[in-house]
Amino acid sequence: MRKYVYKIIEPAKSHKDASHYFDLFIIILICLNVLAIILESEEDFRSVYADYFLRFEIFSVIIFSIEYLLRVWTCVENKKFRGAFIGRLKFISSPMALIDLLAIIPFFLPFIGVDLRFLRVLRLFRVFRILKMARYSKAFDLIKDVLKEKKEELFITAGLTAIILVIISTLMYYVEREAQPEHFSSITKALWWGIVTLTTVGYGDVFPITPIGKLMGGIITLMSIGIIALPSGIIASGYTEQIIKRKKSKDG
Amino acid sequence: MRKYVYKIIEPAKSHKDASHYFDLFIIILICLNVLAIILESEEDFRSVYADYFLRFEIFSVIIFSIEYLLRVWTCVENKKFRGAFIGRLKFISSPMALIDLLAIIPFFLPFIGVDLRFLRVLRLFRVFRILKMARYSKAFDLIKDVLKEKKEELFITAGLTAIILVIISTLMYYVEREAQPEHFSSITKALWWGIVTLTTVGYGDVFPITPIGKLMGGIITLMSIGIIALPSGIIASGYTEQIIKRKKSKDG
Amino acid sequence: MRKYVYKIIEPAKSHKDASHYFDLFIIILICLNVLAIILESEEDFRSVYADYFLRFEIFSVIIFSIEYLLRVWTCVENKKFRGAFIGRLKFISSPMALIDLLAIIPFFLPFIGVDLRFLRVLRLFRVFRILKMARYSKAFDLIKDVLKEKKEELFITAGLTAIILVIISTLMYYVEREAQPEHFSSITKALWWGIVTLTTVGYGDVFPITPIGKLMGGIITLMSIGIIALPSGIIASGYTEQIIKRKKSKDG
Amino acid sequence: MRKYVYKIIEPAKSHKDASHYFDLFIIILICLNVLAIILESEEDFRSVYADYFLRFEIFSVIIFSIEYLLRVWTCVENKKFRGAFIGRLKFISSPMALIDLLAIIPFFLPFIGVDLRFLRVLRLFRVFRILKMARYSKAFDLIKDVLKEKKEELFITAGLTAIILVIISTLMYYVEREAQPEHFSSITKALWWGIVTLTTVGYGDVFPITPIGKLMGGIITLMSIGIIALPSGIIASGYTEQIIKRKKSKDG
Repeated sequence: MRKYVYKIIEPAKSHKDASHYFDLFIIILICLNVLAIILESEEDFRSVYADYFLRFEIFSVIIFSIEYLLRVWTCVENKKFRGAFIGRLKFISSPMALIDLLAIIPFFLPFIGVDLRFLRVLRLFRVFRILKMARYSKAFDLIKDVLKEKKEELFITAGLTAIILVIISTLMYYVEREAQPEHFSSITKALWWGIVTLTTVGYGDVFPITPIGKLMGGIITLMSIGIIALPSGIIASGYTEQIIKRKKSKDG
Repeated sequence: MRKYVYKIIEPAKSHKDASHYFDLFIIILICLNVLAIILESEEDFRSVYADYFLRFEIFSVIIFSIEYLLRVWTCVENKKFRGAFIGRLKFISSPMALIDLLAIIPFFLPFIGVDLRFLRVLRLFRVFRILKMARYSKAFDLIKDVLKEKKEELFITAGLTAIILVIISTLMYYVEREAQPEHFSSITKALWWGIVTLTTVGYGDVFPITPIGKLMGGIITLMSIGIIALPSGIIASGYTEQIIKRKKSKDG
Repeated sequence: MRKYVYKIIEPAKSHKDASHYFDLFIIILICLNVLAIILESEEDFRSVYADYFLRFEIFSVIIFSIEYLLRVWTCVENKKFRGAFIGRLKFISSPMALIDLLAIIPFFLPFIGVDLRFLRVLRLFRVFRILKMARYSKAFDLIKDVLKEKKEELFITAGLTAIILVIISTLMYYVEREAQPEHFSSITKALWWGIVTLTTVGYGDVFPITPIGKLMGGIITLMSIGIIALPSGIIASGYTEQIIKRKKSKDG
Repeated sequence: MRKYVYKIIEPAKSHKDASHYFDLFIIILICLNVLAIILESEEDFRSVYADYFLRFEIFSVIIFSIEYLLRVWTCVENKKFRGAFIGRLKFISSPMALIDLLAIIPFFLPFIGVDLRFLRVLRLFRVFRILKMARYSKAFDLIKDVLKEKKEELFITAGLTAIILVIISTLMYYVEREAQPEHFSSITKALWWGIVTLTTVGYGDVFPITPIGKLMGGIITLMSIGIIALPSGIIASGYTEQIIKRKKSKDG
């Protein structure tokens, strides 16, 4: 019995069996949830269909809760989570199970007396229900593999970005703070300029205006983008490598 | 006779025969059409040369209509579209034939009594006449092949982009909606920020202004651009692979 | 004698001979010219040192003129430009010789009675003296080789960019012209939006403001950047290939 | 004794010995210093905790000074810096030692009577303490190796960028100076536009407004980004090559 349920709720390997239709049902429910969150944010919809949104939310949470409980119950069928207690604890603390829990918990918190203000923040987590998709999408598998394979390079890139960000923001803070106290009154504020510039987004809300600031900003930008933007090539090649690997293991 | 016409209207394989000059004539007509569309949009030109634009439009539609009818008539010479009726139906619903139809249909609709307002929108489709070029340009062949070969990767990238867009826009909506109700009053509005930021275009019309919004926006931007912008490497490598393939098949 | 002069004015192959010092002299003169052009544009410098700038300009033009005449005289020593008249004509119409001519001609035009207004525009060409560097820099060789090797791909990319630019600008023109007549009153004006968006520069002077314009702009941007920005990978790989080739031919 | 100290202060090769804990201590102190610099820039923190910041600064400088003196004393143990005097001089002028010196010198200058204004600028150098991390981070090793290996390509890229920047800024200066004297009154000012555009940051503070300026700006931008942004592929491939090299030398 438990084995049968386990097979159904796990992502299907073949088409047109119970497991496949269960997957499809969950995927559609996730998509509808995302749609509901987006539509609910529209003032016009919220006021008119508030009732429907609430009912759909209750329905979704019930389904997701059942799904979660079934997953916790049947997880011991998986070799990785053997052991009635320890196996289940392992499963519960796995990333996918945490996402499943995150998808339902905000709904149950008011019943155990959580502050309403804190709850409004928690409602924000409903959007992470989209991450439940990770179980069914190859895109997430790909990212996971790239993150694993290129972990070292990613750490280097992240570290490098952080260091460059701190240096250029500090320099810009010293140079521009007197001319633009509203934008460069502290290094943390200057960091916003640093991020917007290094990612080449360039909103245009903050930029150096003093000649020395422009000179430094120009040189810094040219150099930093060269140093930072390029390790991105590493990750890009990571994606390509992974995809080639998969094709090979599929073909042969 | 039909075979002869078919050979002429198909893209030429050798230079300096009738087919080649027919291609040239159509290509020049397409270019002139695009030029006419651009010039007609200029107030000064439209008012003075309205008459010429109309005459050129009529001339173009007549030529394109004859071309279309000839293509439908002769398409059965192509192995892919054999069968007097079924073959022609297949041809008519092929992408290239639909573009050919789209290039002429807005002109004929008023005669069968279509609403004028709807027609003004349809006139917009005239610009797609430029897509008729696809028959003669290698660029489109290349894109088509890359899209075919890398279909899977493109779906993953598109899905990933969509998911990240929804998550970051929702988060930003929750954080900024009170500070900037004009820009973040709904998730769909926040999506505009998401797209402008993720593509690093950064017009500067919408950006987080609250400290928490800037913090979140900064981290999100740095991470998301890393995750999304990079699968672009996949498509880039797709182009390169295709071009290498072509060179090889040309050489040997 | 002519052969000796030819060897001197050609880029040196070994260090520390007359040819090497001649190259160095010309390179320094080019750099000083660029510096002079930049400094002369500063109001403060122009008014105070106008005299010096003029003298330096006369000096530079004399040197560059002598250099140009010597090159024309000696070019026949090069196998490519054999033939006292035809060879020289060939040389004069070569890109490098045209750049050399462009560097001096604006100075001599007033003597043959050219309109002064036209001349002010021509003075602008002085900045192209920097292109005289092409003779001595590997960077230009590299670009030339990449442009040659990847000619086909570059044409495809350029054509593709042009087609996408026309399509998205036309669409945006139809959608936004009523809401923002100052920015989208014609397709040529909308092209400015198209270029600024496709290159992801995003100054923020022009962007869609209507909901339909934002929707279309968002989708278009996401797709177009994917299609256009990526052939850039082709050129990038072209640079890498060329550099690998050079290293190989150097090593073995 | 000196050898023992040398081994401790050098980056540790094995875990859990004295050298490892010394490294950890220095790394944490560097991080705390960066944090202190960032927090001190906040008005609120500076005024309240000024005392603590000063004490921490004194503590840090003492530690870093001792570290520096120990490094100078023990450097002769390293084969590269043999010779009591010449070896130490070599060490002192090595980049890492200069960074170490830069990290402490601003503190000692007032004692030898340096002007206070000049000192405020020097305090800015405190942020370079983050570069002391270079000794312990692989990221810096990677950058150093890429810079070494791809030196030639980097010079070409830098030169190319400089030349393109000068040309496009000069052209834009000639075209826009009358329409926007506040932004394009000199070539140096126009360079700011050039950098912001070429890096595709596009703050939106400066952009062409005249039709001819927009036409030229558009064409220039499309072309220049193609020519400049792409050698970045060279550096990207440099990172990848280096990382593959390291993996190989680790594995075999």
